[in-house]
Amino acid sequence: MSEAAQTLEGWYALHDFRTIDWTAWKLADEGERAIALDELQSFLSEWQSVEDNKQGSTAFYSIVGQKADFVLMHLRETLDELNALENAFNKTTFAQFTIPAHSYVSIVELSNYMAPPGTDPMQSPEILARLKPILPKWNHICFYPMNKRREGNDNWYMLSMEERRNMMRSHGMIGRGYAGKVKQIITGSVGFDNWEWGVTLFAEDALQFKKLVYEMRFDEVSARFGDFGEFYVGNRLTDEKLQQLFSI
Amino acid sequence: MSEAAQTLEGWYALHDFRTIDWTAWKLADEGERAIALDELQSFLSEWQSVEDNKQGSTAFYSIVGQKADFVLMHLRETLDELNALENAFNKTTFAQFTIPAHSYVSIVELSNYMAPPGTDPMQSPEILARLKPILPKWNHICFYPMNKRREGNDNWYMLSMEERRNMMRSHGMIGRGYAGKVKQIITGSVGFDNWEWGVTLFAEDALQFKKLVYEMRFDEVSARFGDFGEFYVGNRLTDEKLQQLFSI
Amino acid sequence: MSEAAQTLEGWYALHDFRTIDWTAWKLADEGERAIALDELQSFLSEWQSVEDNKQGSTAFYSIVGQKADFVLMHLRETLDELNALENAFNKTTFAQFTIPAHSYVSIVELSNYMAPPGTDPMQSPEILARLKPILPKWNHICFYPMNKRREGNDNWYMLSMEERRNMMRSHGMIGRGYAGKVKQIITGSVGFDNWEWGVTLFAEDALQFKKLVYEMRFDEVSARFGDFGEFYVGNRLTDEKLQQLFSI
Amino acid sequence: MSEAAQTLEGWYALHDFRTIDWTAWKLADEGERAIALDELQSFLSEWQSVEDNKQGSTAFYSIVGQKADFVLMHLRETLDELNALENAFNKTTFAQFTIPAHSYVSIVELSNYMAPPGTDPMQSPEILARLKPILPKWNHICFYPMNKRREGNDNWYMLSMEERRNMMRSHGMIGRGYAGKVKQIITGSVGFDNWEWGVTLFAEDALQFKKLVYEMRFDEVSARFGDFGEFYVGNRLTDEKLQQLFSI
Amino acid sequence: MSEAAQTLEGWYALHDFRTIDWTAWKLADEGERAIALDELQSFLSEWQSVEDNKQGSTAFYSIVGQKADFVLMHLRETLDELNALENAFNKTTFAQFTIPAHSYVSIVELSNYMAPPGTDPMQSPEILARLKPILPKWNHICFYPMNKRREGNDNWYMLSMEERRNMMRSHGMIGRGYAGKVKQIITGSVGFDNWEWGVTLFAEDALQFKKLVYEMRFDEVSARFGDFGEFYVGNRLTDEKLQQLFSI
Repeated sequence: MSEAAQTLEGWYALHDFRTIDWTAWKLADEGERAIALDELQSFLSEWQSVEDNKQGSTAFYSIVGQKADFVLMHLRETLDELNALENAFNKTTFAQFTIPAHSYVSIVELSNYMAPPGTDPMQSPEILARLKPILPKWNHICFYPMNKRREGNDNWYMLSMEERRNMMRSHGMIGRGYAGKVKQIITGSVGFDNWEWGVTLFAEDALQFKKLVYEMRFDEVSARFGDFGEFYVGNRLTDEKLQQLFSI
Repeated sequence: MSEAAQTLEGWYALHDFRTIDWTAWKLADEGERAIALDELQSFLSEWQSVEDNKQGSTAFYSIVGQKADFVLMHLRETLDELNALENAFNKTTFAQFTIPAHSYVSIVELSNYMAPPGTDPMQSPEILARLKPILPKWNHICFYPMNKRREGNDNWYMLSMEERRNMMRSHGMIGRGYAGKVKQIITGSVGFDNWEWGVTLFAEDALQFKKLVYEMRFDEVSARFGDFGEFYVGNRLTDEKLQQLFSI
Repeated sequence: MSEAAQTLEGWYALHDFRTIDWTAWKLADEGERAIALDELQSFLSEWQSVEDNKQGSTAFYSIVGQKADFVLMHLRETLDELNALENAFNKTTFAQFTIPAHSYVSIVELSNYMAPPGTDPMQSPEILARLKPILPKWNHICFYPMNKRREGNDNWYMLSMEERRNMMRSHGMIGRGYAGKVKQIITGSVGFDNWEWGVTLFAEDALQFKKLVYEMRFDEVSARFGDFGEFYVGNRLTDEKLQQLFSI
Repeated sequence: MSEAAQTLEGWYALHDFRTIDWTAWKLADEGERAIALDELQSFLSEWQSVEDNKQGSTAFYSIVGQKADFVLMHLRETLDELNALENAFNKTTFAQFTIPAHSYVSIVELSNYMAPPGTDPMQSPEILARLKPILPKWNHICFYPMNKRREGNDNWYMLSMEERRNMMRSHGMIGRGYAGKVKQIITGSVGFDNWEWGVTLFAEDALQFKKLVYEMRFDEVSARFGDFGEFYVGNRLTDEKLQQLFSI
Repeated sequence: MSEAAQTLEGWYALHDFRTIDWTAWKLADEGERAIALDELQSFLSEWQSVEDNKQGSTAFYSIVGQKADFVLMHLRETLDELNALENAFNKTTFAQFTIPAHSYVSIVELSNYMAPPGTDPMQSPEILARLKPILPKWNHICFYPMNKRREGNDNWYMLSMEERRNMMRSHGMIGRGYAGKVKQIITGSVGFDNWEWGVTLFAEDALQFKKLVYEMRFDEVSARFGDFGEFYVGNRLTDEKLQQLFSI
């Protein structure tokens, strides 16, 4: 048996991807649409208060292509809060104009491969801030789930801690090369959803997603051990863009 | 030919995952909704009586994310009882407000790798209690199906009984480390459903699901031989939460 | 080139899995429902006559879980008869209350690995009865499709006839251990449907399905060479259970 | 780099699988149904003229099981003609009573492994007739797509021309053993659809499909290098069967 | 860690595949259809202006078979423009008569395996023209996504730069053999969509797609390292063909 990596966990995450039912939206009269958008605005305000109180964070982005029209990414202290939040949202008039497209349940995670022995990472304010992060307001979002591969000779979970640590160090170096360009939130989903991790990236320039993920693909951790799910990419829904999206 | 492991079987299990049709629910008038909830309540009471009489057990949890809104996990003495139960439920007004999302058919199973030779496990009250368990009322549920892999050199069913026993022992040790934190119900589904086993976990703290499943992944049984299906995670639907879920 | 096994073929088989549209069934008035059930009864009678005349056989079972509500397994002399039968059924009022869930097209098959040389198996009444079987009225049904694997070193079709014969002999021994408990109908579907074989099992005690399939999984034929599709399990729809199923 | 096989191409092919919407068909009044069937008849006549003029060919078969109710297999000189044909058909009243179930785009292909050097196969009337074939009116059709495998040591495209030629010769021998029993049309779909080839078989006796495909599976080309998609099997829709199919 | 290839990126690409809802289109009255087609025409004109101003390019092709009825391939400077474009289109009356069938998000990419050292490719007008290409008006389009394989010994990302460069050179040679016959646009989608690349081919003669892709399949880059997704093939929607497509 190989030694399991230590992990630290913070806020639970729910990525909620939705498609807009344009036919229903156009059939609705102006009054209904106004009610729906008011409801959405009041939820957005509520979520903003939660974020202001550092009890969670919410990001709202449109998604390019037919996979979904937008994603709401919520971070909260407990699974119960996320569940209550999604159920409340599902009951809104606004939600009746949307169709569920995809979702992902996970928890913010830091792997502890690099922690100096003898220290308690939970005492570090920097680490705490990374476990309970306020999501950035950058222009673009990218989300994809991933597994570490367990196939024949490419079995991550049969490697020694030492081998894994060395590979993760090199992997981390690539990420650090994108500091200031790409902000990365890793969420663990073992026991919660179909893949082992979710990766959420934020960038002002979407091209940096491609540069980063492509560069990492040549790194042994990804080249030999990374299995990837569906990728979603989108643009931040500022107030102005939100209004524009739903105006007809 | 490799020697098959002995297994003991108890109650049959049906996991019934459902999505709420919120549009229909909101369109219904208050009277219809009351009828539907009354029906649900009367089924819940009936299932509670079955449990009180130790003729079965039922767990009712909400599910986080878009895969489903809730799961009913039923344990009963026979497949016929499960089938009658699901058909009766399908005919309720309440069920008309739900959409089938996923189901799983299996039977509570104990593998007998560790039994001391010469003993009859069915004489043990502890074993009988594990084969016909009253499902715990803990806060959270986690469900996933799994196979033992049969690929190239990683073929579980070509190992000797000795090799399998040793690996299962180590695997069981991890589980025991979570005693009091995670309660695990293994159900066998060979011949009944698409995977070989279903795993249902209960915990007061959902994070323990991740800790347990992640730690096990480094164990050779999972690392080399475990193939996993979709994961579902949720929160117990207490009376209060149930009322809250359906109130609009 | 490896020598192909000789096979004997009997009746064509159509497994027709259906889900009941409960919402439509409940919306229909009593008269419509009566018409639909009368139609179903008259088809069942017709199929019974075919069986009485030994021109085919039909089994009717409910299915547990959400994959389907029932299956009609039809055996007939020709593909044309099966096609005519399904088209006639599709046009009934009863069928309008059902939704196609899955189907499988195959032909009853006996592999000839064990036939003593110099004999003509088609002269054997026992073999003819197995090629054109009247389906048993046992309590439970189990259906799954399967392939023989062709992957790397686990390639069934690259083995010599001798190797295959030896493995099939051992495989058959397990089956024989379940004589009187499980009745097995093997149907070949190469050229007819997506898998190479369909396996239909009947038992009075559903647990025997699990025991048999699990024991076989440790046999080299299954362990190294068996790839399995979706499993369906159900209970026989006696007249009484049928009436109960559709009463509301 | 391995040498690519020479191929010869003839007519483009569109396999158009459809399911009948029986509920809509039964709801329509007799007049509407008559209009729909008249339209279908006029398309069938038009396609027959094309075939009489040797500018294409069309086969019309019912399909057994739930995958589809019928298939129209069209051969035409250009992709544009196929596209025009399908669009015209989609606009008919008849098509409104059908639901698209599957389609396949390919082109009749002869591989040139066996051509004697120094000859121009396009000068051979026999070859031209095989590239632009009038589809047979035999009782049964079988369709499936396939790839040549590229996995580890089983990589068809890394073999030498010599190795491929030898295996294809043996493969062809099996096919020739079914002369007069099974007529085979190979269509290439590299660059056109999801698999590399489509295989369409015709036979008076459907059992010959199984015999042929099963025998080939033991041949190294199929055993090691063949990956197969979904299989469809059906019966020819003669005028009488067509009328019967749609009469209610 | 293997050295990542340098890439150059140009315009973002959105492939938007749609199916026509013929039932709705036929149910609409002539006035509604005229409005929908006028809207489409005004979008087409707008996109033509963008192309005339070299700020992007749009191709409009019908698709053969049931996968989709047409594709709009848009190239634009930013992801935001593509997103705005798709949202505006989704709100049209015309779009209400279509059903999303598939989409792909990527960015025009040139790999830099062959660039002479010491030169800045972005200074080359030829390279700039390839990064921001005006899409050709050729008769046919072919689209498919692809990955470089990472399996066992066939792991592209574990090869040295030298090995990859040599294979890509040979690969490029094949492409050059089709100069004037097939125009190829490679778009990178790592971080944007589910595959690593999209390949869009244009040709006057559709058969050249098959010839090119088939020849490449014998090349080591494709034979050992190419994994391919779904293929779409179609015909250019000239004004005349467009009018014909929607006339009923």
